[in-house]
Amino acid sequence: MTQNFSLKSYLTEGKKLIEDYLNKCLPAPQTWPETLHQSMHYSLMAGGKRLRPILCLASTECLGGNQEEALAAAAALEMIHTYSLIHDDLPAMDDDDLRRGRPTNHKVYGEAMAILAGDALLTEAFRLLSLSHYPQDPLSRLQLIQIIAEASGSQGMVGGQAIDLLSEGKKITLEALEKIHQNKTGKLILASVQAGALIAGAQGEDWKRLSRFAQNIGLSFQIADDILDIEGGEDIGKDLGSDLEKNKATYPALLGLEASKKRAKALMEEALDCLSIYGEKGQALKAIAEYVVSRKN
Amino acid sequence: MTQNFSLKSYLTEGKKLIEDYLNKCLPAPQTWPETLHQSMHYSLMAGGKRLRPILCLASTECLGGNQEEALAAAAALEMIHTYSLIHDDLPAMDDDDLRRGRPTNHKVYGEAMAILAGDALLTEAFRLLSLSHYPQDPLSRLQLIQIIAEASGSQGMVGGQAIDLLSEGKKITLEALEKIHQNKTGKLILASVQAGALIAGAQGEDWKRLSRFAQNIGLSFQIADDILDIEGGEDIGKDLGSDLEKNKATYPALLGLEASKKRAKALMEEALDCLSIYGEKGQALKAIAEYVVSRKN
Repeated sequence: MTQNFSLKSYLTEGKKLIEDYLNKCLPAPQTWPETLHQSMHYSLMAGGKRLRPILCLASTECLGGNQEEALAAAAALEMIHTYSLIHDDLPAMDDDDLRRGRPTNHKVYGEAMAILAGDALLTEAFRLLSLSHYPQDPLSRLQLIQIIAEASGSQGMVGGQAIDLLSEGKKITLEALEKIHQNKTGKLILASVQAGALIAGAQGEDWKRLSRFAQNIGLSFQIADDILDIEGGEDIGKDLGSDLEKNKATYPALLGLEASKKRAKALMEEALDCLSIYGEKGQALKAIAEYVVSRKN
Repeated sequence: MTQNFSLKSYLTEGKKLIEDYLNKCLPAPQTWPETLHQSMHYSLMAGGKRLRPILCLASTECLGGNQEEALAAAAALEMIHTYSLIHDDLPAMDDDDLRRGRPTNHKVYGEAMAILAGDALLTEAFRLLSLSHYPQDPLSRLQLIQIIAEASGSQGMVGGQAIDLLSEGKKITLEALEKIHQNKTGKLILASVQAGALIAGAQGEDWKRLSRFAQNIGLSFQIADDILDIEGGEDIGKDLGSDLEKNKATYPALLGLEASKKRAKALMEEALDCLSIYGEKGQALKAIAEYVVSRKN
């Protein structure tokens, strides 16, 4: 990594780029139907790391693409992530009152509006993708929609959440836990990196390398999250030990804390290996990955 | 209309075509995650008129297109309609125990799984559209996705449902009621007809005529539904007078029963006028529209 690269500025600039874009492309809170749009803005503009969209932008950049061209895909990915949080927080699901330190959507707007805000954000994501001009080849734009839909549907994010809920309070194997995470969070992270790669025109080895990178960091992030839940850290915005309280299967519970840390580290090293060929162009992607896993201070 | 045309066979054949296709394109109930796929199949394969997909096929046919080419769009529209019913039936929304004479999705699979089944069906609809080969021009396929996303999102179906919920128990004007219906049900019916038209390559006047047809029948159907809720009819599968009980604004309540019937009839006549130019090719579309409004026996 060159000495000139500042991850802090990169993240700040990326976040601003994405949030400005999100704010611009979602109908304004004063637009009919106001309450629904307010509820969508409340959760979409609630901050957070913007990890998925930033990964998408950094992935485009890693292959020499233009960040601006990846903004619509990045925004769509963040809308899908946000809708999933709104629905996951509902009383019928994880029943959480707080998200990023603020009351969850249904605590402010009621359950019905929270369900609808989630539905509308998911729909808006696909509308945005259908309207985007990138990738320039319309067939690649359709492929992008396919990748994102597959990553978020019944054999991706939603499927993972379904199995996660059905597994609560049950003893599950490490293999089953890994399958849950791979689907619940891993596939959308993979899609974020692939979206960026597709927009930069990735083919062959580049596509495979960035996909492998994304698969490894996805799992590594999840293990780090499980560790965070026990050890705490900056900016987590949820109660410490809440997974334990809910009797949720986690890596530390199944594998032990030290072995979990080792596993997260090994996955991260494998991930970073995939980027070595890109030199300076891959430095943002590399730094983001390391940052996410080490963010517990 | 020619004497040879049988609406009954047309509807039976269309329904079979669509249901076979739906069954084929949705992951099987034995596919991981099984419970989620079972829940999706439970509601998607629960029968019903299949009005939206049949309108889509008939619209393609009216402009000389091939029904087979419209099947993916038709299936996507039915998935979106079904997801909206699953979410509308939830305790936080309309809190309905029965749908088409069977227990609602959350009564069988629980609220969490019902929310996720809805989310997954919506996502699956866009996956299906991204994979379809029709319309043949990829740019038109992206336009189709845009039309369907706009019709179902915050400024379409979901927006209409949000305002409908917020208006419950309140006095609203006829204009406000019409705006709710236009969004909650009208826009997806419009999108169904437009989808079929787009697949047949519609342009200019054809596009305008079929769109006008769809806007008129959409509202006409809704008024007929409100009348059905009071007078009853075949195959309704919900309790008579349930709108009254919930103190919902309806056409008969705001306009009177007789005036509502007149309004529905006038809208239908305007709709059918748009089809006269298509002669025999438009007979299915015409017969379906008349059937839906008159189905109260």
